[in-house]
Order: sequence, then structure tokens, then C-alpha cells
Amino acid sequence: MAGMNKILECVPNFSEGRDLKIVEKIIDPFRKTNGVKLLDFQTDEDHNRSVVTVVGEPEPLKESVIASMGIAIDLIDMTTHTGQHPRMGAIDVVPFIPVKNTTVDEAVEVSKAVAQRVADTFGLPIFLYEQSASNPGRQNLATIRKGQFEGMVDKITAPDWKPDYGPAKIHPTAGVTAMGARMPLVAYNVNLGTGDIEIANQIAKQVRHISGGLRYCKGIGIELKDRGIVQVSLNMTDYTRTSLYRVFELIKIEAQRWGVNVIGSEVIGLVPMQALIACAEYYLGIENFSMEQVLEYRIYE
Amino acid sequence: MAGMNKILECVPNFSEGRDLKIVEKIIDPFRKTNGVKLLDFQTDEDHNRSVVTVVGEPEPLKESVIASMGIAIDLIDMTTHTGQHPRMGAIDVVPFIPVKNTTVDEAVEVSKAVAQRVADTFGLPIFLYEQSASNPGRQNLATIRKGQFEGMVDKITAPDWKPDYGPAKIHPTAGVTAMGARMPLVAYNVNLGTGDIEIANQIAKQVRHISGGLRYCKGIGIELKDRGIVQVSLNMTDYTRTSLYRVFELIKIEAQRWGVNVIGSEVIGLVPMQALIACAEYYLGIENFSMEQVLEYRIYE
Repeated sequence: MAGMNKILECVPNFSEGRDLKIVEKIIDPFRKTNGVKLLDFQTDEDHNRSVVTVVGEPEPLKESVIASMGIAIDLIDMTTHTGQHPRMGAIDVVPFIPVKNTTVDEAVEVSKAVAQRVADTFGLPIFLYEQSASNPGRQNLATIRKGQFEGMVDKITAPDWKPDYGPAKIHPTAGVTAMGARMPLVAYNVNLGTGDIEIANQIAKQVRHISGGLRYCKGIGIELKDRGIVQVSLNMTDYTRTSLYRVFELIKIEAQRWGVNVIGSEVIGLVPMQALIACAEYYLGIENFSMEQVLEYRIYE
Repeated sequence: MAGMNKILECVPNFSEGRDLKIVEKIIDPFRKTNGVKLLDFQTDEDHNRSVVTVVGEPEPLKESVIASMGIAIDLIDMTTHTGQHPRMGAIDVVPFIPVKNTTVDEAVEVSKAVAQRVADTFGLPIFLYEQSASNPGRQNLATIRKGQFEGMVDKITAPDWKPDYGPAKIHPTAGVTAMGARMPLVAYNVNLGTGDIEIANQIAKQVRHISGGLRYCKGIGIELKDRGIVQVSLNMTDYTRTSLYRVFELIKIEAQRWGVNVIGSEVIGLVPMQALIACAEYYLGIENFSMEQVLEYRIYE
């Protein structure tokens, strides 16, 4: 990864999770492109879907995503696709995420450039979503995807649903794709010393954005039946603005109302180092700290 | 820094801090060697000393350190050297520090290999210190350096002070060098809401290893006169075993005895990300966390 000064992450979701030979062909460009690194891919048979995590410099990342999408368009046929997860295209959704020395604005630019190229090259209609959305009604992926592949043939002909790039009709076998930019998500769960799901649901409601809580926080209550406890399961949508310690401390405060203790927490999947370092900074009351002081930050800058 | 799988850090101290042209020549190999990265160098005129921080794969790091030492031996004349900092050689001390996918044992091996090569090539006597020391009486740099350059001409002829590598007489202009392996140091200070230096001194005594405190912690009291407060100034000598949160919480507990508050802390210089992430893990009570979940750890592995 020589000279990776700017790093974007891309997490494309492909509608194939059963035939590993096909998945391998689709991710091949991520293995072979210089300046790009395949971090992870997870296939799910029930969902019949693969989630790929790749990082790289913006230019080679763009090229590898376009190449991978081309292969997916060739190999995935949505007319015969079944699976539990909602989906509307062979490449269902392609988010670009700023990781290092890049901003959301740059990720928006990259998403638009890739959308243009893919639409022109493969005749695939693209909806921009999240931070790239052309209007607020297209920010939410679920809103765009409503009706799924089968419903999209009609939906896309409605004036409100003209795609941002490509033809106003679905690709016959690959459907449509949502593409956009977003901040890194941190999946963070806080465990409560109770088995009462109602308490987890209430606290989730109090701390999440939609019902009056923290701006960059989504949350629901979940039962962990084998442990006999419940948890507030969170998606932190911008850890630079709503830090993990803030929601953790707020949940402790809300839990007091029920005489319940917070007994721990967990981070699911990948987390940017800064999301955790910001918590150390808060709890240790570190003055004048800079990420430039982090050895690894300096080694790889 | 393509393919830097194993990373060691080296922090050589050179006895030249006034003539920047000489310092530039000495650090030139760190700029020019592939697989090695110069992170920082600081020159001090009063001390007449430069502290260089460099990281790299073990093999190229070795070669660049040997080359740099050769240049320092040519250009620094200890017979005319003056400065406030104690010193015994043109290259006073050379610690090797494990940073990534390396252990202290590997750093010990590297220090011995470099010591052998430098002694053979330049006729420079070397004392192994810290984790590389050949006996416990040589672990402490200050013990080895006692008498400084001027006293070393006699000290080195004593049977107890036969060097580990090289001749039992000083290099006429470059003196002697201490070389060894140690864990990364974290310079960490905790500020107290009082101006009473006696309280900082007492707390330092309670938390530092030598007088009954934490195993990998050194500490003294310091006055910050411009702010009217005092601080417990710490050197954490193995953050993997004595974590920063532990000394921070212990200082809070000790400060209660005087009715004094801990009002903040500071990290001086570079800190490995894991030293801070371990604190976030503690305060958030994160279960089953692995460094493999840190995005940057995965990007650069």
C-alpha cells in the first residue's frame, strides 16, 4: 500500500451469496488492482448476498469498483434471484466512505464519477443516495429500494423516480443500483443488567435521533436470550460528531430511571481508531491531543 | 511503505545538536533507505544533542542505523563536545522498540546484530542495555553512562565494564554507545487542581514502581508555574501491562486524601494507538474486543 495518502472505503453489496465461484470473480478486481486492498467479504446464503469491504486511493478504487460491477452485471441474473434480504439490483448498493485524508464531499464526487461511468458503459440506471442524493427523498436507501427488483420496472418510469444516471428503465438482468457517500458506520451495542426488553426499547427511543436523542445515532432494543439480558443496539452514523462515549454515558443515565446497570458494551465489525481514541481522550481528560501524536497515524501518513 | 509487515522503531540519540548540516548528513540514510521512514528528529542546542525517531522493517532499519552511525562516528568529535545532557559517545544510545508484529525478543536480536556489525566495522565499543543487557547491572542507561565520555577511558578498562561488543577501550573520538531493546515509552502527565508540589511528589511516589506503585510506571512531581498547578509526570514503560487508565484512576484515588481533584492529563509526543484504545475499552466496558476490528490496523496489516 505504498503512498496511500488518501484512502476511501467502499462497501458494495452484491446479490449473490450462494455461488462462491461467481463471488470470487466479482471481487477479483479488488485483489488485482494496485493501490486497492480487499479487507473483507461476507457471503450469506439465506440473504443470497455478499458484502465486500475494500479500501484504496480514490483513482484505483474507482477503476476496481467499475470493473467489479461490470463482472457482476454479466454474472448475476436478477430475474431468477431469490433471497431474504430486500434487493433491487445485481449490485444493490455501493457506498463510498472517507477513511483518511478525504472528506464526505470527495466521497460524493467519487460516487458520482463512478455512477456516470457505470451508467454510460453498462446501461445501468443509478440512484444517488445518502450524502450524494439529488433530493432529500432519495437519502434513505429503503425508500429508493421500496418495491425491490420486481417493482422497479414500473417505479423507475414515474417522473419522481427518474434515475440520476442511466436510462429510465431497469437493466433487464441487473436491475438498478443505489450509489452514494456516507460517513463510516460504527455498530455499537450497550448491554443492560436486565432481561426486560421494554427497558432496552425505551432507552433506545430516548437516545436515538429520530425520537429526540443524539443527532448521529440510530437504535433499537434487542434481547440476548442465551445471556438473559437485553441490549441497546446502536448504529453510530457519524462518530466524529456523536462520539461513542456520549451515547454510552447517556444510556447509563437513562438506565438509572429503572434502577438498571449498564454491564458492558460491544463493537461489531470494523471501527476507525479515532472513534475509540476520542473516548480515551474524554475519560482521561487529555488536553491538547492531536491524532498526529498517534504513532500509527504518523507511520502511515 | 509497501509490505511493512514487521515494524521496529529506533530512537538513536546523537551528540550533535548545534550544526544542522552535520545532523542532516547523519539522518540522510533514514531518508534514503527503502522500507524505512524518518518520523521525527529534534535537535537541542543546550544539550548539543539530537533525538531521531525512525521506523522500518527490521532488515532495512538495521542497515540504515549502521550507515547513520558510521557517518556520526566520522563527523562528531567527543573530545571537543560540550552540552548539558550527560553523554558518553557520538552515538550516545540506540534503543530498538517493537511496534508492529514484532516482540521485544526480536528487538533484542536486532540490537545485538547491529552492535556486532558496528563494533566490527568501526571499532566502536558497545554496551547492551535495557532488555538486551548481559547482566542486571547494565539494564539502566544512567549506570552505564556514569562518568560520561571523559570518565569512560578508565571505566571501560575495569573487568566489570568490559563492553559487550568491540574493544575494551573507547573509540578516540566517538567514545562508546549503549544499544538495546525496550518497549515503547509513553510520556503521560496527570494535572492536579492544586499548586502544592508536595502533593504531586507524594502521589508520584505512591504510583511509581520504585517506591511501591505500578510495575511499569516511573514518576515525579512537576510544577506548572504559569498555570499555578502541579502535575504528576509519568513515564509508562510498558503500556501493554500497566495501562494508562490504571495510573490515571489510581492518581484520582490518591488525590482524594488531600481533597484535590485531577483536572486533566496530557500525552507528550508519540503514543501507540493501542495504549489509548485499551483505555476506551476499559471505560466503555467493551467485551471481546480485538485490535483486528480497528480499521487502520486492518488497512496496514
